[in-house]
Amino acid sequence: MASADFESKRKTIQSFVRAYPDFPQPGILFRDICPILRDPAALNTVIDLFEEHVKKNHMKVDVVVGIDARGFLFGPLLAQRLGVGFVLVRKKGKLPGSCVSVAYDLEYGKAEAEVQEDAVAAGQKVLLIDDLLATGGTLFAAVELMKKLQAEVLGCLVIIELKDLNGSDKLKPHSVFSIIQY
Amino acid sequence: MASADFESKRKTIQSFVRAYPDFPQPGILFRDICPILRDPAALNTVIDLFEEHVKKNHMKVDVVVGIDARGFLFGPLLAQRLGVGFVLVRKKGKLPGSCVSVAYDLEYGKAEAEVQEDAVAAGQKVLLIDDLLATGGTLFAAVELMKKLQAEVLGCLVIIELKDLNGSDKLKPHSVFSIIQY
Repeated sequence: MASADFESKRKTIQSFVRAYPDFPQPGILFRDICPILRDPAALNTVIDLFEEHVKKNHMKVDVVVGIDARGFLFGPLLAQRLGVGFVLVRKKGKLPGSCVSVAYDLEYGKAEAEVQEDAVAAGQKVLLIDDLLATGGTLFAAVELMKKLQAEVLGCLVIIELKDLNGSDKLKPHSVFSIIQY
Repeated sequence: MASADFESKRKTIQSFVRAYPDFPQPGILFRDICPILRDPAALNTVIDLFEEHVKKNHMKVDVVVGIDARGFLFGPLLAQRLGVGFVLVRKKGKLPGSCVSVAYDLEYGKAEAEVQEDAVAAGQKVLLIDDLLATGGTLFAAVELMKKLQAEVLGCLVIIELKDLNGSDKLKPHSVFSIIQY
């Protein structure tokens, strides 16, 4: 059960999120996290909430893996708090060297995700992070990438979860922690 | 003049950078900063060096502005250290709401950069951050965006500067601080 303190922090973060109808395509209600980043206290609170969740639920974390591009905004901050490394999952063609890749469907469109082959070692315990969970396509691809590298996915962290799109079902049996749900 | 301490930290960071010939195109030697992020102490040292430089050279900073996508990896960390907000400059079509945009040339290709119109207020003092300075096209576009918003650019921060491409000339009179030069 969420504490009163968590609930108060959650509401603060929610007050910074803005909604834009029909962006980037008609019918999509875009939730914008940019205002959180403009406010240093709000950004710090987001990382506090992630850190509290991780310390309560995961004994040991080896790596934080962030999704291109908005996962890059929060992942390194959380990784530094936890004292672990940060690894990038990017769209195909952006990472040099030997990579493993996975094709996936987006909420709007299609793409291919990649990770450097030597970025995560077999058996390492990883947390995946992104700004938002919609249909779960991107995070599912990241889970698949981690499986290819024989890493152990502890769970997924997002600021916003769009419940109607059932992304967390797609990611089962992996847990999803979200700060705000719509 | 760089101190012995700075020089030692600089060498440590340099030891994490890998070079990939002919990526993403023939003739390009790609400098990869991903290994820095995998090592929490190395990433922390990068932010230390940026913070030391900023505190020594700039009396007051209002906003850190980071360039899509690798500027997102370092910008929020520096912004948190300085206790200021972070603003995203992205490729066209990625940011919702009213934006200002600028077209520019890349080291390889062409693009258009955008920032949300209300992200920076007139008169605010901003630092621009990216992973690497090549020809300076992207950072120059970011400077132009800041001018459109009537912000004051204090300078640019990058981990790596490719001196042969004269990016820092293009950005004059704005200063460029780089940790590693090739």
